[in-house]
Amino acid sequence: MTHPTCWIYDTTLRDGAQREGISLSIEDKLRIAHRLDALGIPFIEGGWPGANPKDVQFFWRLQEEPLTQAEVVAFCSTRRPGTTAATEPAFKPILSARTRWVTIFGKSWDLQVTEGLKTSLEENLAMIGDSIEFLIAQGRRMIYDAEHWFDGYKQNPDYALKTLEAAARAGAEWLVLCDTNGGTLPHEVSEITRQVVEAVASWNLDPIPQIGIHTHNDSGTAVANALAAVRSGARMVQGTINGYGERCGNANLCTVIPNLQLKLGYSCIGEDKIIKLTETSRLVSELVNLAPDEHAPFVGLSAFAHKGGIHVSAVQRNPLTYEHIEPETVGNKRRIVISEQSGLSNVLIKAQSFGIELDRDHPTCRQILQRLKELEHQGYQFEAAEASFELLMREALLTRQSLFEIKGFQVHCDKRTSDMSNSLATVKVTVNGEEILASAEGNGPVSALDSALRKALLSFYPAIAQFQLTDYKVRILDGREGTSAKTRVLIESSNGQKRWTTVGVSTNILDASYQAVVEGLEYGLLLTQTQQNPVALKLS
Amino acid sequence: MTHPTCWIYDTTLRDGAQREGISLSIEDKLRIAHRLDALGIPFIEGGWPGANPKDVQFFWRLQEEPLTQAEVVAFCSTRRPGTTAATEPAFKPILSARTRWVTIFGKSWDLQVTEGLKTSLEENLAMIGDSIEFLIAQGRRMIYDAEHWFDGYKQNPDYALKTLEAAARAGAEWLVLCDTNGGTLPHEVSEITRQVVEAVASWNLDPIPQIGIHTHNDSGTAVANALAAVRSGARMVQGTINGYGERCGNANLCTVIPNLQLKLGYSCIGEDKIIKLTETSRLVSELVNLAPDEHAPFVGLSAFAHKGGIHVSAVQRNPLTYEHIEPETVGNKRRIVISEQSGLSNVLIKAQSFGIELDRDHPTCRQILQRLKELEHQGYQFEAAEASFELLMREALLTRQSLFEIKGFQVHCDKRTSDMSNSLATVKVTVNGEEILASAEGNGPVSALDSALRKALLSFYPAIAQFQLTDYKVRILDGREGTSAKTRVLIESSNGQKRWTTVGVSTNILDASYQAVVEGLEYGLLLTQTQQNPVALKLS
Repeated sequence: MTHPTCWIYDTTLRDGAQREGISLSIEDKLRIAHRLDALGIPFIEGGWPGANPKDVQFFWRLQEEPLTQAEVVAFCSTRRPGTTAATEPAFKPILSARTRWVTIFGKSWDLQVTEGLKTSLEENLAMIGDSIEFLIAQGRRMIYDAEHWFDGYKQNPDYALKTLEAAARAGAEWLVLCDTNGGTLPHEVSEITRQVVEAVASWNLDPIPQIGIHTHNDSGTAVANALAAVRSGARMVQGTINGYGERCGNANLCTVIPNLQLKLGYSCIGEDKIIKLTETSRLVSELVNLAPDEHAPFVGLSAFAHKGGIHVSAVQRNPLTYEHIEPETVGNKRRIVISEQSGLSNVLIKAQSFGIELDRDHPTCRQILQRLKELEHQGYQFEAAEASFELLMREALLTRQSLFEIKGFQVHCDKRTSDMSNSLATVKVTVNGEEILASAEGNGPVSALDSALRKALLSFYPAIAQFQLTDYKVRILDGREGTSAKTRVLIESSNGQKRWTTVGVSTNILDASYQAVVEGLEYGLLLTQTQQNPVALKLS
Repeated sequence: MTHPTCWIYDTTLRDGAQREGISLSIEDKLRIAHRLDALGIPFIEGGWPGANPKDVQFFWRLQEEPLTQAEVVAFCSTRRPGTTAATEPAFKPILSARTRWVTIFGKSWDLQVTEGLKTSLEENLAMIGDSIEFLIAQGRRMIYDAEHWFDGYKQNPDYALKTLEAAARAGAEWLVLCDTNGGTLPHEVSEITRQVVEAVASWNLDPIPQIGIHTHNDSGTAVANALAAVRSGARMVQGTINGYGERCGNANLCTVIPNLQLKLGYSCIGEDKIIKLTETSRLVSELVNLAPDEHAPFVGLSAFAHKGGIHVSAVQRNPLTYEHIEPETVGNKRRIVISEQSGLSNVLIKAQSFGIELDRDHPTCRQILQRLKELEHQGYQFEAAEASFELLMREALLTRQSLFEIKGFQVHCDKRTSDMSNSLATVKVTVNGEEILASAEGNGPVSALDSALRKALLSFYPAIAQFQLTDYKVRILDGREGTSAKTRVLIESSNGQKRWTTVGVSTNILDASYQAVVEGLEYGLLLTQTQQNPVALKLS
């Protein structure tokens, strides 16, 4: 049996970034885009080039580091009233973004045209048609986002359909129905989408443009609305990873994709990709620096956690009683205190992803799992800190070399009014039995610590001169503890060719940072050695 | 026009409390029950008396402090196989709970009966019927929760309907269809509920039992499933405040109620009560000690927040463009987010919400905007730090009082291998011309700084003893600068009644934290003064 395709269109980088508290650097955007590409998302909306300089640069950078299979899409408005598409300055940065696909949005709601745009209903149709024709003439394939579709259609269905028809006749391949204020309920989406599919078919176009759906969660039904539209004939769903977006967010693709693919029989991202869903969800939440929603469907830490004793034994007898799908299908896992089996296979899968073959029955395997559980309980997280996890595994496998030994540090910060603050750090390490004390100043206590440590080690390990700290993230684990809360620090390092991330946890932010800095240097040195003398790591 | 009634059945105190991290005292449960009563919720499930001693006591306490209009409901299982209802020990605490209504749950799924209960399909029907008849004979009115309804019905509809019929013929007034593992999608709920309503009508009972719906959010569609069931004829919705519940939670009543009442025309809790919804949601989150979901539909802090400049002016012209309902209807409010994209009108609206009247043409207005943009360029962010923004405005308006002056700080951290780290902070402040030096130790440098500052100020401002740091967030602004990057710290404080957030930015994380701690204390003192001596702040 073949599965019909439903195309997933991710707008995390544009609509998702509208969420309060999210502010993405170009590097963040590139990393997310590549991650979505690896997940098999076919369309990735990159931003609105021209609306801000960051988005222009993002598209340029993407030309240097292109995606492997996803189409990156540039987003913009139609031309303004009373001008021509050819002279519209907003289209210049769109064209220079050099994407194959462009999405433009236009008005569907008569009230928005006359009162918002202050133009005529006719001119709005021309704006939609002209803009699409112009961009197609420049070699682009077009997606049309019909803003405020459902409100507009309820008020004036004839006019709303005319706006879609203008887009379709101009050559748009996709007509996307947007519930911009998120107020529409599933039964309305279902009925209206069905009517639109019929209307579009009646225009006798060849090919018939396809329908998409873009929903917001203001009524708590963004996911259900997307599913309702697909069941009425839509074949594209727009949404964001983790449902990020303004107000109550957009349709959460981490929920939409498994519902469509595992329950409704659509093909979205490929059976071999959906297992990466949980990992992608958590990685994106790290990159945007928001705590992951532990109760998120499918991908949340608690999505398959069983608390009640009855539940636990029932789940073990028959998982279907309290699990609607197999958690592993989406890369998540059942969390039951007494069952180690699922955890063990996770370690095996993770190890495999680092090229380390472990045998399930080897005692070291259980040892790693045990240590991992202890550390995760303390607040460590290895999803985004794979270098630290590899060091952990090497330690258990007795292949972690002792390159240096950390003896301790002292940090002193001094701040006077109207003065810059002063930070001084001193570290003590031993290398090959030799004890070294080194001190350095820095912009703050963490950078002073980092500098002192490099100074201490540089003469023994000159490769350190090539290492750079490329990212530094801090997350407070239990905010309710205030400034006494545990802190998790993630540090990303680079040697110019490869990047790796390490983690540290402590109630003392300096201590947590120091752990991550130390492991970052150690892992970098390990990479240098492996390049000079590659050894396959195997245990069986 | 009269509105049909849809009965709301709250199970926050039972199913909601299954959420990881929630543990309610009897006092907490009583406060929540009274709050739900005040909200006009007609049925409040109090717990399972007998399953734990706390629940037994809760029902006894409630007899001393009864609810004004809600029915409190006791919850339990049917009798066990091979016994009689009259000798079932589990029913004793149910009867001593002295509620008018009792909910019992039973098995609908044949597999659960034969494999889970290890009994016959016939005996299961007898267990359901006997238990209900017995409790009715003891003067109770009965609600029957059909566990695993949708899975059972899909596997064996005939048997599933027989279990419902057993409950109905025994006298249950409500038959509640439970999607226990949360895997069912809205179109299935819709169709199956319709079939159940038809089947129940065909039994020719008088009165005809009514149908209820109980959903979980594992597919992200708990709310939509509840709405679908109501549209197919269900007249009771079971759910929890804020959607608390095991795994991904239960149907969120704070979303279900406004959808039913404001959009679908059902009467649930009375028009004068729904305005308390936001307040109730936040109060319950305080009582269960979980951070409120700021992006929750209808009641979240960001549910009606507008960030982009285009949105802000569009919302002011026509609120329907980005607001699906009037926020005041549910006791929420529109929030204009102050950010880089802000214009003058954002500042004016924001000031108004603090009770400060600004005139658009007054030079101070532009001054505030100018300062705001400078600070945001440096990395400050006022979206989430409204207290710091208010202090900024008061400074420009020359109404910021100087309560204390910060002279500087010193911090010393010391860490040796195998030792806990040690942090010591010393601060220098002046209050009313008097210079104070105070030192304190802490779990880390920030908590040491916080403690030292409180110590210095406490004798001058005893109100500080009431302030608590309730959240601490750290964001590295440009991670690529590594440990030299600028750091933004957000600190949330509370005085037991109100919460406020302040911000600090620096390349030195201690300095940034210190700024936010200092403003947090200052704003808290401002609140204390305003409560004692309220002054309207006006500029025109």
